Amino acid sequence: MPFDMNLVQRGARLRRSPFFAATQRHGARAYTVYNHMLFPICFADLEDEYWHLVHHVTLWDVSVERQVEITGPDAFRFADLLTPRDLSRCAVGQGKYVVITAEDGGIINDPVLLRLGENHFWLALADSDVLLWARGVALNAGLRVELREPDVSPLQVQGPKAKEVVATLFGDKVLGLRYYHFLETALDGIPVVVTRTGWTGEVGYEIYLRDGSRGDELWERIMAAGRPHGIRPTGPSDIRRVEAGILNWGADFTLENNVYEVGLERLVDEDKRGPYIGREALRRIRDEGVSRKLAGIEIEGARIEFNSTKWPARAGNQVVGPVTSALWSPRLKKNVGYAMLPIAHSSAGTVLNVELPGGDVRRATVVPMPFVDPQKAIPKS
Amino acid sequence: MPFDMNLVQRGARLRRSPFFAATQRHGARAYTVYNHMLFPICFADLEDEYWHLVHHVTLWDVSVERQVEITGPDAFRFADLLTPRDLSRCAVGQGKYVVITAEDGGIINDPVLLRLGENHFWLALADSDVLLWARGVALNAGLRVELREPDVSPLQVQGPKAKEVVATLFGDKVLGLRYYHFLETALDGIPVVVTRTGWTGEVGYEIYLRDGSRGDELWERIMAAGRPHGIRPTGPSDIRRVEAGILNWGADFTLENNVYEVGLERLVDEDKRGPYIGREALRRIRDEGVSRKLAGIEIEGARIEFNSTKWPARAGNQVVGPVTSALWSPRLKKNVGYAMLPIAHSSAGTVLNVELPGGDVRRATVVPMPFVDPQKAIPKS
Repeated sequence: MPFDMNLVQRGARLRRSPFFAATQRHGARAYTVYNHMLFPICFADLEDEYWHLVHHVTLWDVSVERQVEITGPDAFRFADLLTPRDLSRCAVGQGKYVVITAEDGGIINDPVLLRLGENHFWLALADSDVLLWARGVALNAGLRVELREPDVSPLQVQGPKAKEVVATLFGDKVLGLRYYHFLETALDGIPVVVTRTGWTGEVGYEIYLRDGSRGDELWERIMAAGRPHGIRPTGPSDIRRVEAGILNWGADFTLENNVYEVGLERLVDEDKRGPYIGREALRRIRDEGVSRKLAGIEIEGARIEFNSTKWPARAGNQVVGPVTSALWSPRLKKNVGYAMLPIAHSSAGTVLNVELPGGDVRRATVVPMPFVDPQKAIPKS
Repeated sequence: MPFDMNLVQRGARLRRSPFFAATQRHGARAYTVYNHMLFPICFADLEDEYWHLVHHVTLWDVSVERQVEITGPDAFRFADLLTPRDLSRCAVGQGKYVVITAEDGGIINDPVLLRLGENHFWLALADSDVLLWARGVALNAGLRVELREPDVSPLQVQGPKAKEVVATLFGDKVLGLRYYHFLETALDGIPVVVTRTGWTGEVGYEIYLRDGSRGDELWERIMAAGRPHGIRPTGPSDIRRVEAGILNWGADFTLENNVYEVGLERLVDEDKRGPYIGREALRRIRDEGVSRKLAGIEIEGARIEFNSTKWPARAGNQVVGPVTSALWSPRLKKNVGYAMLPIAHSSAGTVLNVELPGGDVRRATVVPMPFVDPQKAIPKS
C-alpha cells in the first residue's frame, strides 16, 4: 500500500525532491520534513537498513540538503566570513565540513561546503534557512555577492560496495577522489557533482544532481549500476552515524550551542587571518571554557527504541541534561548515544540515570566517542 | 490507535509543542512539520472539521507559529526596518498583519506582529527562519536590539461560538477587543496574550501561552469552557481560509514573490517615512508593474481532492502557471483555489485548463476573490 501523504502534508506547501516519484515507487514508508521538503526516512526497517549499509550499499534521497550558492566577485570573502574555517586552505575541487556561526558563536548550521570555483561555493545544508541568514548578513557587508538556492539535489551512495557502484557509473576517475574532494561530470548528459563524502563513517559518495528534471533517470541509473552489488534505497542510518560519533543538527546541537560544547572545535582554524562572524565570541568561549559538553553515553539494559524526544539524564535526583540521541547498536549489542552534560558530569565513567518514556529508568555511563571505527568515524577534511 | 510518530519523525530533531500530549490524547491523526516543530493538521476529516468551524467552534494547536521577539532600546526602529508597514501607526496593545521583505522585495514571511511595548514586538511566523534573517540584518544595522525565540505558543479558538468560549475564560473584557488588538492576562496564573485574530474569516481569537510548562492545563481549561458550545480540536481549515481568500506562505507565495504579485499591496504603507528593507525594490516593482498575479480560479467538474503539488494550468497548450491551492468548497459546492498567472491570463473570465494528477484535465475560470464573505474575508488591520 502506498504511503498516505496526507499523514505528513496538507496542501502544496512542502516541496518534493526530484526523486520523489522514485522513492514512492521503491516503497518509502515514512517521510519527515527538512528544509521545507519531504524527506524519505525509511523504506523497510531501520535495523535492516543499517545492516545493509554496513555490509552492502544503500541509496538515499538527501535532496533536503538544499544548497546555498555563493557567487559574485567577492564570493570567497563572503563565504570566508560565514565560517571559522580558513577557506584559503580549500582548493577549487575540494570540500570542507564547516560550521556557520552566529555573532554569539552559536551554530546556525553545519553544512558540507564545496568550492566549485575561486568565487563559487555551495553549502549543503542541515535543516535551517541559511539562505535567509546569508542574505541578512550580505545586506550591509559591502561585498559583491549573489546568493540563491540553485537546482541541486544530492543523493548518497553509502556502504562498502559504494566504490564499485560509482566506478560503474563514472569510471575509475572517481576512485581517485580523496576524502572531501569532488569532480564535476555528467552521466548520459545528466549534469552532476560527485563527492567523496557521507553521513556514515562507511565508504561513501554523494551525487549532486544539477538538473531537477532528470531525477528519475539518475535514480534508476544508480539502481541499475548497484544491482549486482545488491543496492537498496534506504533512509539515512542514525544507528551508523551515532556509532561513528556524527552529530545531527537540531537534535544533538542547535543555535544555542557552540563548537566547544559539542566537540567540533576542530572546525575552528585558530590561525585563520580573515575576519568571520562569531570570532570574538568563540575566542572568549574558548578562553573562559564551557560549562557543558556533549558526551557519549551507554545506557544499560534491554534494547531501547530510538528516542523521539530529549530524555532527561539525572545525577542523583537532579536533572543534569538532555539525552539528544540514543539508540540500540546491533553491532555493539549496546544502547549508545549522546547527552549534553555539565562539565562536572561529563567525564568518562560518570554514572547517570536516564528516564525513558513510560517511567523506565536506566543506568547510564559516560563513555568516550566514537563508538565504532575511530580511524574513520568523524569527517576530518 | 495512536498515530505512529515514526511516520513523520526519526530521532529528537523535531520539536513538540506544549500541547503535544493533549493533541495525542484528543486523537490527532496527522502531523506535518512547520518551523522545525510537529504540527497537528487533522483529528477527524477535513470537511467535517470545516463544518464544525463554520457552525460551532474549534481549537487548533498552532504553536508552530513561533515568535521572534524584538526588544532593546532600538526595537521599534529595528522592527520598522523589517516591514513596509508603518509601525508608528501600531499602538502598544495592537497587532498588524505584515510582510517581512527582502532587499529585492521578495516575501520572507507574513507574520502577525504584536506590539507589546514601545520597544517590544513579537512576530508570529509562517514557516521560515526569520530569526536567522533578523539576526543577519542586525549584525551591521548599528541598532541596539535583542532577538530571540521566546517561550510563547499560540492556540487558535475559531468559529461563531469563539466569543462565548473566550468570555467564559477571560471575562467580558476580551469581548471589547477590536480586530487585531490584544490583551495580556492570565488564567489561574497561566500567563497568556489573547488576540482578536485568526486564519479563517470567522470570528476567532488566538491565545498565546507564555509558559510552555502549562500547555496541558491551558488546553483542558479551553476544552472545558468550550464544552457547552461543542468545541472540538481540529487542524487549521484550508477550506475556510481559501474561501476567505487567505494565502498560505510556502504554498501560495514564497520568497520568489512580492506583494504586488499576490494581492498584498495593502501591506505596503506608501507614505511610510522610515527606511525599510526592500523599499527601493518595491517602488520599482510597483512603478514597472508585475508580469504575473495570483488569481482566484474555479475548477469545473466533480469534487477534487486538495492539491498536494502545484498543478499546471494551461492556456491552450501552453503551461502558464501553477495552481497553488485548490480544493472543494462544501458550502459553495464548487472547486476553488488560486493560480499564479501571467497578467495576460489573470483577468476574471479567462478560461484555462488545469491538469490534476492521473491525467484528469479540467476546465477552469479565473474569478474574483474572495469566494465567501467579502466583508470579513481578508485581515485588514
